[in-house]
Amino acid sequence: MTPPPATPPPGRPCSIAAALQVLGEKWALLAVRELFYGNHRFEQIVRNTGAPRDRLTARLRALEEAGVVERRAYSERPLRYEYHLTEAGHDLAPLAQSLLAWGDRWLLPEPPAVLHHHVADHPDHPLDAAWTCRTCGHDVGSADLTLEVRSPGWNHQGPLPPVPS
Amino acid sequence: MTPPPATPPPGRPCSIAAALQVLGEKWALLAVRELFYGNHRFEQIVRNTGAPRDRLTARLRALEEAGVVERRAYSERPLRYEYHLTEAGHDLAPLAQSLLAWGDRWLLPEPPAVLHHHVADHPDHPLDAAWTCRTCGHDVGSADLTLEVRSPGWNHQGPLPPVPS
Repeated sequence: MTPPPATPPPGRPCSIAAALQVLGEKWALLAVRELFYGNHRFEQIVRNTGAPRDRLTARLRALEEAGVVERRAYSERPLRYEYHLTEAGHDLAPLAQSLLAWGDRWLLPEPPAVLHHHVADHPDHPLDAAWTCRTCGHDVGSADLTLEVRSPGWNHQGPLPPVPS
Repeated sequence: MTPPPATPPPGRPCSIAAALQVLGEKWALLAVRELFYGNHRFEQIVRNTGAPRDRLTARLRALEEAGVVERRAYSERPLRYEYHLTEAGHDLAPLAQSLLAWGDRWLLPEPPAVLHHHVADHPDHPLDAAWTCRTCGHDVGSADLTLEVRSPGWNHQGPLPPVPS
């Protein structure tokens, strides 16, 4: 469990806003993408994302402070570090894959690359991923959800006063 | 099908980067969150996100150009618009939910609010969402995927030349 961000985001208290406080700058998620792809060194991440070096440095530091990545020394002289995903970082896989799936579907001018999924009893099949409720086995749409607010400080949806028109 | 972004993102050609070109500024996804919550008017979105008005205006315009939101007039005199998600916008539900789940798990200092899922044969159960492969029914992790590149222009992962160390 990482500490919450030092500065709460403005607006509605919400885990989406808190997550975007950590991840909501595209270089952050592109750096995470490279770590998923096995590119752990700063120069590789710069090259593969196109990020300006200073902004990438700042984002990697913020990701480290948020507990999403960790630095590991790979050279003693000179002392050099590479970046690895923590457990919280690996847990971003659904987010990265839902971004990929959405971009493939809505933005891609050409047939997308295909992700293949491997499990013991179903080797090598094209990934057909969906956000699914484990309890009932159905896909989760946006229209069939309701929200129970347990903690008034973290009210995702609840009644905000109407805005005067 | 919306047109691809006018300026291709730098770095590795990739649907994640293309998606972040549209969505990768936190006010964009927070505006989308408000539209999911049924708040369609500019003043509501400003209030609930805390976004600076000028940046929110710019993000909503970009989302409209990318085909994620559309404007609908709700008043003739004076002429006023509200914002609604298009089909591409509604298709961001898994992304928003994966952000919410990650923030709930890793950033929340208190017990999270609970989303309830409703389907015909399983009314009113807590949502236990997972990114699942429809073909095999298993959860999708990051380690059990491989990539087949169909189009060299959109190489998500493929071999980039090694970076000199």
